[in-house]
Amino acid sequence: MAENKKLVEEITSMDVDFAQWYTDVVKKAQLCAYSGVKGCMVIEPAGFAIWENIRAELDRRFKATGVENVYLPMFIPESLLQREKDHVEGFAPEVAWVTHGGGEPLQERMCVRPTSETLFCDYYKDAIQSYRDLPKLYNQWCSVVRWEKTTRPFLRSREFLWQEGHTAHATAQEAEERTILMLNVYAEFLEDFLAIPVVKGRKTDKEKFAGAEDTYTVESLMHDGKALQSGTSHNFGDGFAKAFGIQYTSKDNRLEYVHQTSWGMTTRMIGALIMVHGDDSGLKLPPKVAPVQVMVIPIQQKKEGVLDKAAEIKDTLAAAGFRVKLDDSDKTPGFKFSEQEMRGIPVRVEIGPKDIAAGKCVVVRRDTREKIEVSLDELSAKMAEILDAIQKNMFETARAHRDSHTYTATNYEEFCDIVNNKPGFVKAMWCGDEACEDKIKEDTTATSRCIPFEQEQLATTCVCCGKTATKMLYWGKAY
Amino acid sequence: MAENKKLVEEITSMDVDFAQWYTDVVKKAQLCAYSGVKGCMVIEPAGFAIWENIRAELDRRFKATGVENVYLPMFIPESLLQREKDHVEGFAPEVAWVTHGGGEPLQERMCVRPTSETLFCDYYKDAIQSYRDLPKLYNQWCSVVRWEKTTRPFLRSREFLWQEGHTAHATAQEAEERTILMLNVYAEFLEDFLAIPVVKGRKTDKEKFAGAEDTYTVESLMHDGKALQSGTSHNFGDGFAKAFGIQYTSKDNRLEYVHQTSWGMTTRMIGALIMVHGDDSGLKLPPKVAPVQVMVIPIQQKKEGVLDKAAEIKDTLAAAGFRVKLDDSDKTPGFKFSEQEMRGIPVRVEIGPKDIAAGKCVVVRRDTREKIEVSLDELSAKMAEILDAIQKNMFETARAHRDSHTYTATNYEEFCDIVNNKPGFVKAMWCGDEACEDKIKEDTTATSRCIPFEQEQLATTCVCCGKTATKMLYWGKAY
Repeated sequence: MAENKKLVEEITSMDVDFAQWYTDVVKKAQLCAYSGVKGCMVIEPAGFAIWENIRAELDRRFKATGVENVYLPMFIPESLLQREKDHVEGFAPEVAWVTHGGGEPLQERMCVRPTSETLFCDYYKDAIQSYRDLPKLYNQWCSVVRWEKTTRPFLRSREFLWQEGHTAHATAQEAEERTILMLNVYAEFLEDFLAIPVVKGRKTDKEKFAGAEDTYTVESLMHDGKALQSGTSHNFGDGFAKAFGIQYTSKDNRLEYVHQTSWGMTTRMIGALIMVHGDDSGLKLPPKVAPVQVMVIPIQQKKEGVLDKAAEIKDTLAAAGFRVKLDDSDKTPGFKFSEQEMRGIPVRVEIGPKDIAAGKCVVVRRDTREKIEVSLDELSAKMAEILDAIQKNMFETARAHRDSHTYTATNYEEFCDIVNNKPGFVKAMWCGDEACEDKIKEDTTATSRCIPFEQEQLATTCVCCGKTATKMLYWGKAY
Repeated sequence: MAENKKLVEEITSMDVDFAQWYTDVVKKAQLCAYSGVKGCMVIEPAGFAIWENIRAELDRRFKATGVENVYLPMFIPESLLQREKDHVEGFAPEVAWVTHGGGEPLQERMCVRPTSETLFCDYYKDAIQSYRDLPKLYNQWCSVVRWEKTTRPFLRSREFLWQEGHTAHATAQEAEERTILMLNVYAEFLEDFLAIPVVKGRKTDKEKFAGAEDTYTVESLMHDGKALQSGTSHNFGDGFAKAFGIQYTSKDNRLEYVHQTSWGMTTRMIGALIMVHGDDSGLKLPPKVAPVQVMVIPIQQKKEGVLDKAAEIKDTLAAAGFRVKLDDSDKTPGFKFSEQEMRGIPVRVEIGPKDIAAGKCVVVRRDTREKIEVSLDELSAKMAEILDAIQKNMFETARAHRDSHTYTATNYEEFCDIVNNKPGFVKAMWCGDEACEDKIKEDTTATSRCIPFEQEQLATTCVCCGKTATKMLYWGKAY
């Protein structure tokens, strides 16, 4: 068991140093590696396979609402980026500039897209002429670049992968409905597929997207009590349409501006999976998103018939539609167990000579470590139940953690005490003044996460200034 | 029928001006649009859906050979690009340079990847230590940038989408086997899925990839008789490994260099689909790759029961696994027919009051224009047969075209006459001297396409210089 022990020893405990634990899991579960390009990462097969599953499932859900995929250029000419005032102010400071191409200086420098609102607008101004051309419900999967100074794998890197949806509509109401529809797609995806509970709400003006009328967000809580903005959906109204001249002829022959939305989710979600579900044994993946759901591990595999039976189990489960692998390497079973746990594979099936003689195997749950004896005849049926139970349990566990780390503050002393000493969300009333957001951020580093759709009347006055409160906000320290 | 006529009139005939016909089809079938970024295109939904099908099918075939997907940074520091001498000479002249990031000049400029050999090598030098780490069978789907002066949609643009596989092996033999294996994956994919017949062979030294020991290629012939390099697979030997220091400890504890391959296929294949299969009515897609395989078009749709029956047919076909749409817009049937043909949808189903009364519908093949009366009870079963027949017929038609446009030349006069007057492939003997390739290119603009695996002894002397011939080559003018 020496090698087994070594594997586990190399992981920092999450209670000792959560940031180091995160880095250790990323590395030991082989999700990504640092690259020779500063601030950029190499997403390795185990990490990219998670992204492939996220992408496939989100893409399916998008398409079910009528969305189509497109691909726009990765470059944005400087003049195009500058067309919408708030947008350029938000993004220009953190872009990378291409100044030379084909051995010659460019007449106009171009940035590598930090987001593609301007490109979509430039395209839509020609592609949209009549009400018959609406709505446009386009999305693209691509990478974007933001020149961050400090970076962390999956959470903040100079280049990351995402999808960005960009829609154009005839009316303001349609745009608002689409904005909320996509927020709900994100919320359901996070809860059903990634087993991550969310708080849905609207961003304050201070925190909204550069150029948006309204930004809606789904916020989730990590194991260390920090918040993670997990998906955002923006309603642009007709601001971009006016800046770019995107007009259509209506049914009654009038020239109108379109109303637009955009919405995005990124490879940050891999970071969220690690930080919501992981433990001191490593990654813990919900079955629906896990690239490998079942690892079959033979015991005493040199004994006659063991490897054959293990392979048979693998084939049976694969034929039943499970994502399953067999670890027939020459490592010890204990080492294989540790690796399977580190990689977050939801269950392992242990099969040895005694099990074979008894016509059974042992299924071990990654989430609860429960060992379940299962007759080989019933394995496929039982496996479906067990994976389903794991998915549900992981969501409930995360929700219980979120709920037990959501606090309420009605005065500033209490607020600061919670923010400084009890990691989690803090619910508190707010007057609506940005000055209070600024003061809270300066005093505590906490930021307003959202104005939740589910409002509560905790008090009548703002937790910061004491003036009349108009809304309840979620606050928290965030990634 | 006025609007119907108009739609068709706007397409140039391919015999009048093939290049203009191509551009017209790209535009009218709504595959891509020019963007505001010079030399870059917007891939629109109908075009991107073709790429999604290509990607899904190729990805499935790659994974069946053990390949895993990863994602590496889009930037390459200049010092990294320069590490392998032939490689930098091949690519440096056509890269785009990022010189500023986050408002400051970079200490070292970086290019946007034109291809990622150098990044994979930089990663592999750390990720590969022992024979246990081999082979590495990695692939990535991404976009790359090459600063082309003249561009054409899908065929040559400054940014395009592709996959690039990069593998590392313990032995030279394994690397050669993988190079050929992936070439065969491309060949089978092109023939089985895209219905495009190929010639498989090896590139001459003049035409091989910058830094490769050997480049293998699949070459296809477009309708206008020009060749298109459709997929390449490179064996790097240990050249990159030596330049980047990628070594592993072998089983007998010696330090060895790895042997590497790379292989790629691009959005050019959408151009190939247009130019191999299209006609004067527009695009013609093989059923396997077609995003929409069947368009149901109601006749006299305002008559009671017609739209209901059309929707029922659509649902029945969808439930049977076909990709099917219903055109219930208020356009005339004739206009809908033209649109369905322009977009290359393999079959349409016409259903009107008389058909409904007779319990049948009319299936019209896009490839042959044949009209087939099919009983509604048998539609799903018949549809499978019809789509299968279309796929086969499109391949056979393309092969017959390729074969009837493949010529043989045994002396230089004959060779030049064919190249100048008979568009197509020319098979001819070659001495092996690059000077003859240079002369032929200068005299005729034709290039050597490949040294085909299936060699023939057409003559004993080189078609250009008359010296002893060592190999038969395929020649042609190429995109």
